[in-house]
Amino acid sequence: MTEELLGANLKVIGIVRNGIRQRPESGWQGIVSELVIDSHLTEALDGLEEFSHIIVIYWMHQVSPLDKVATKVHPQGRQELPLVGFFATRAPYRVNPVGVTTVRLLERQGNILKVEGLDAVDGTPVIDIKPYIPEHGAISEAKVPSWVTKR
Amino acid sequence: MTEELLGANLKVIGIVRNGIRQRPESGWQGIVSELVIDSHLTEALDGLEEFSHIIVIYWMHQVSPLDKVATKVHPQGRQELPLVGFFATRAPYRVNPVGVTTVRLLERQGNILKVEGLDAVDGTPVIDIKPYIPEHGAISEAKVPSWVTKR
Repeated sequence: MTEELLGANLKVIGIVRNGIRQRPESGWQGIVSELVIDSHLTEALDGLEEFSHIIVIYWMHQVSPLDKVATKVHPQGRQELPLVGFFATRAPYRVNPVGVTTVRLLERQGNILKVEGLDAVDGTPVIDIKPYIPEHGAISEAKVPSWVTKR
Repeated sequence: MTEELLGANLKVIGIVRNGIRQRPESGWQGIVSELVIDSHLTEALDGLEEFSHIIVIYWMHQVSPLDKVATKVHPQGRQELPLVGFFATRAPYRVNPVGVTTVRLLERQGNILKVEGLDAVDGTPVIDIKPYIPEHGAISEAKVPSWVTKR
């Protein structure tokens, strides 16, 4: 088997607006972004405002297809952390640069969702939004390698 | 703004194998699947086995591009639940039929990941795998609409 093109027509459903051009040094916590969703899709957002958190699926467009994807990386670019395969990290350099982040939904106004904690720069294309439903996403007893919590 | 094609070359990184042709009546809990990842990507999985849970991102290929996406749906097809926009549900009928599910990683053997709880039928293309890191995905105080927990 070799990696095949899916032949999928991925569509942009909206754009991230937060004025941020690169990863903030202090991280993304507390960063407020607006997701400006295609106005034709406004009604498809109805009911989302009843959720406190949503899952944003986006395309990390700053990763050029010409960038070579290294098989192994140091998580967060920190040399003191062990080299692991990119699938064991959230690094943007991966076969498909799809980002998935659970964020707090602060407000919905029509086709605009105001969210907190999204780790995406200004202009990032959004490809899907899903409600955060704890039974599908919250794991109380998750185990992670020790490098994850190393400060 | 209208929905634009992203022009992204989405690649298949692996395939779901579980022998299941349609949603089991009793749900997906406890269902064990194998994710057969492209053997060229085996090393990119190194270190993933240290996580108890992973996030599987997949393409719901049984949704035909010719299927009309209804703006509003009854969650889980249950008529007694309120009509909400599809972005407020996990319905497969959405602009981009991308599925995102957190599952337990039971075992890794080379390029094969054995997982529990994936809600995808046999043959589903996998497009990404990420580690489940509680600080990026677990929300202890999430609020959901009452229909979510209605039995």
